[in-house]
Amino acid sequence: MGNIGIGFDIMGLALEKPGDEVIASKSDTPGLRITKITGAGSKLPYEPEKNTAGMAVQRLLEHLGETGRGIELEIHKKMPINSGLGSSAASAAAATLAVSELLRTGLSKRELLPFAWAGEQVASGSPQGDNIVPSLLGGIVLIRDNATFDVHRLHVPRGLYVVVVHPKLELLTRDARAILKQEVPLDKHVRHNANLAAFIIGLFNGDLGLVGRSLRDEIIEPQRAALIPGFYDVQEAAMQQGALGCSISGAGPSVFALCANSLIAENVSLAMQLAFAMHKFESTIYVSMVNQEGAVIC
Amino acid sequence: MGNIGIGFDIMGLALEKPGDEVIASKSDTPGLRITKITGAGSKLPYEPEKNTAGMAVQRLLEHLGETGRGIELEIHKKMPINSGLGSSAASAAAATLAVSELLRTGLSKRELLPFAWAGEQVASGSPQGDNIVPSLLGGIVLIRDNATFDVHRLHVPRGLYVVVVHPKLELLTRDARAILKQEVPLDKHVRHNANLAAFIIGLFNGDLGLVGRSLRDEIIEPQRAALIPGFYDVQEAAMQQGALGCSISGAGPSVFALCANSLIAENVSLAMQLAFAMHKFESTIYVSMVNQEGAVIC
Repeated sequence: MGNIGIGFDIMGLALEKPGDEVIASKSDTPGLRITKITGAGSKLPYEPEKNTAGMAVQRLLEHLGETGRGIELEIHKKMPINSGLGSSAASAAAATLAVSELLRTGLSKRELLPFAWAGEQVASGSPQGDNIVPSLLGGIVLIRDNATFDVHRLHVPRGLYVVVVHPKLELLTRDARAILKQEVPLDKHVRHNANLAAFIIGLFNGDLGLVGRSLRDEIIEPQRAALIPGFYDVQEAAMQQGALGCSISGAGPSVFALCANSLIAENVSLAMQLAFAMHKFESTIYVSMVNQEGAVIC
Repeated sequence: MGNIGIGFDIMGLALEKPGDEVIASKSDTPGLRITKITGAGSKLPYEPEKNTAGMAVQRLLEHLGETGRGIELEIHKKMPINSGLGSSAASAAAATLAVSELLRTGLSKRELLPFAWAGEQVASGSPQGDNIVPSLLGGIVLIRDNATFDVHRLHVPRGLYVVVVHPKLELLTRDARAILKQEVPLDKHVRHNANLAAFIIGLFNGDLGLVGRSLRDEIIEPQRAALIPGFYDVQEAAMQQGALGCSISGAGPSVFALCANSLIAENVSLAMQLAFAMHKFESTIYVSMVNQEGAVIC
């Protein structure tokens, strides 16, 4: 989940679910092939160079000098696409780790990051790492600089739960980016700085009250909310049920809320789903803690 | 020291030196009087309602229902004024604490904050707390919200030293504020967010390398640097001597650098002073650790 409301293009958070599965296997026929794509990704391309998972693996194989290898990938999409949940990053992260394990490269996930990142850019067209970094490494992360992979984990307070509600409406990240104003008023910039800084202090100190009152975005959220029918009703429903804060997941249309425990999270998720239903949108609920592991070998 | 380069209007840091002294005593003649002002503050007004220290005490006395009390203040300015070092905040903090102690109010420094803050506004004319909060409470602080006094201490890594070099040139905060553009380009806003977040993570994790590479201000610094002749030479001199980062203290003209130990700090301070001298400006050096106590009773 990119952005986390307050960290546009620089922060991301890994969820326990949903997540994609990639199966990598060796083949006697040289070259990289995607042999199967199941789930929500039926529209996704099988050509490796157009597919985020394929491109990530291709970059890894180039690095290893193993482009002649016979490798087959099965991609089982369990995440909705164009949902604001970083589905393409999840596939890229999974594929990179799977092939690294298959070839016994001994590379750490941090070492694999540049290859997975390159793969994800095929889909997003932009260099932001706010989806790929948490997908691969887990946790709540800050990306200080894309070019140097200057990434950092933030402390995750005990008890923090994340609710995501994904309404059945399609929204392209490119469109959600195109509408953004290219100037920010200085006073909003300063208030945003204060809230971002306080959000991070709240995480490090385990001060969930501070995390909640800092999770306010006056800059991006008001612009993108216009693309998500009923957003403010969903947000209000979450806050009335005791969410710490609620905003747009990535570029949307998914909406997330942070909560102080699992029962509040359940209450919040149902209230948010009901609010979307009032606007005639079906939606899917995901409730989880922050995923501290990122991509894993199963 | 307000701003700390990366935290315009929202972060501040307390220095061990310089600092002001205020002596408060009881008098049989009712009413608040400023009886003496020494040091750099020879231009400062003796009328309590025009003086930051006087106004801070006045607000405290109103809160206590003690406006009829006879109180005399001596203000010994040991800090340069209009230096970007928050001299007016230092006097307000000292006076508030002194009178609170004199009257045995039992109020904590956090409880005294609103009165000192009100006093400082007499001088600054703006509600920012980035000078008054560290002056009174000490440490490196974030002010999330002025209206609710939502203030937080950041972790101060072991070994961190602060160099401040104050050139003999006068610069009014009001002027330094008036020149600022009222819009920030979105891409600079995002990069600034990334650096600010990384700076705070660096402090909490004791990662001085991260603190250093995050201490970059592309927004305010380039605008205010134009008011400080030789600024970029001073900054370069600091970095060449191994400073973690270097920027403008408050609204200037003082320039500060953060350093990883006391010897580097000494080297950096001399190089900065020399660079100012090349531009024909005498300057005063202050080197200290972060002051964790704030205002104290002597």
